[in-house]
Amino acid sequence: MIDRLQQQIQFIIEIDKLKGILRQTLIMDGSRNENDAEHSWHLAVMAVLFAEYATTRNLDLLKTLKMLLIHDLVEIDAGDTFCYDEKANADKAERELIAADRLFGLLPDDQAREFRALWEEFEARQTGEAVFAASLDRMHPIIHNYMTGGHAWQKHGVTSDRVYARNAIVERGAPELWEYVKHIVEDAVAKGFLPR
Amino acid sequence: MIDRLQQQIQFIIEIDKLKGILRQTLIMDGSRNENDAEHSWHLAVMAVLFAEYATTRNLDLLKTLKMLLIHDLVEIDAGDTFCYDEKANADKAERELIAADRLFGLLPDDQAREFRALWEEFEARQTGEAVFAASLDRMHPIIHNYMTGGHAWQKHGVTSDRVYARNAIVERGAPELWEYVKHIVEDAVAKGFLPR
Repeated sequence: MIDRLQQQIQFIIEIDKLKGILRQTLIMDGSRNENDAEHSWHLAVMAVLFAEYATTRNLDLLKTLKMLLIHDLVEIDAGDTFCYDEKANADKAERELIAADRLFGLLPDDQAREFRALWEEFEARQTGEAVFAASLDRMHPIIHNYMTGGHAWQKHGVTSDRVYARNAIVERGAPELWEYVKHIVEDAVAKGFLPR
Repeated sequence: MIDRLQQQIQFIIEIDKLKGILRQTLIMDGSRNENDAEHSWHLAVMAVLFAEYATTRNLDLLKTLKMLLIHDLVEIDAGDTFCYDEKANADKAERELIAADRLFGLLPDDQAREFRALWEEFEARQTGEAVFAASLDRMHPIIHNYMTGGHAWQKHGVTSDRVYARNAIVERGAPELWEYVKHIVEDAVAKGFLPR
């Protein structure tokens, strides 16, 4: 077998571990925690359906999908960092950089560079595609929390103020989706899933 | 909230159920069955990495990714049909058609038509994108079975002849990947994971 394909297959085998990286959110039937592979798939479908709401003109949907498919791979080594956990977020960037070196380094050089660049673009949140992708990444657990009676919010004592502050990027990336986020956050408060 | 977004959100909530549709394959650490959402994510990453091996000239990667992201949604209603189970495969098409009507029917008309057309194209295996996508869909469980000591093959008494016959589309969609498939099937036979 050619070396290039061997490297690509090793990467495909390695990233199977993303299926074992558990998030704070439950799947919507409440039966268990969601994992990063499922989350990445769900975001990619959302990107296809919600592309029409992206603030940026001429969204490159293919690039957006690639970003979303690989955006959490670094968590295979660095673990999932709960977005409201300020202490864990302090050294998150450093842990994820080391993970990116190892994981993308498994690929042939050209693809390692492409995936690394996509991940860095996602993390920097400067381009239209990255802001839109980040908006979906923020909106997704809000829907999950809403559908599961505020599970992760309550477990970690999150309030509606913090949800608004932490997820304001959705307003920048997709204003109509931000309206929806506000709608369900207010409904979650009204229903007692989320303290004000 | 506008009706259109309401329909799209309902679809995103409904397809969360794909995370609960279990496949015959185990995830690669052998700890549990893989589900369709994880499988769809893994295939999408494979499509990005392996596009260079597609037989078809000028592969439309965006269309391929959309197909792979939604190709198993019908299993939310129709269930996962093990590919070597001939009895269950007899009425699979009919069960999946009914599921497609219900699921894609949740979407706004234009997106319902787009998703339905993508799914039908995938199922028909006539276009270059569909043949390539189907090749990845066939190759993926072979890697999983190989990595888990032939788990699903042994459970269902599958032989190497049946693996070759059932998965020959990989040769048509991506000849280099077929070489890899033959390599691991022969190695699985040699290691006693798969009877000849």
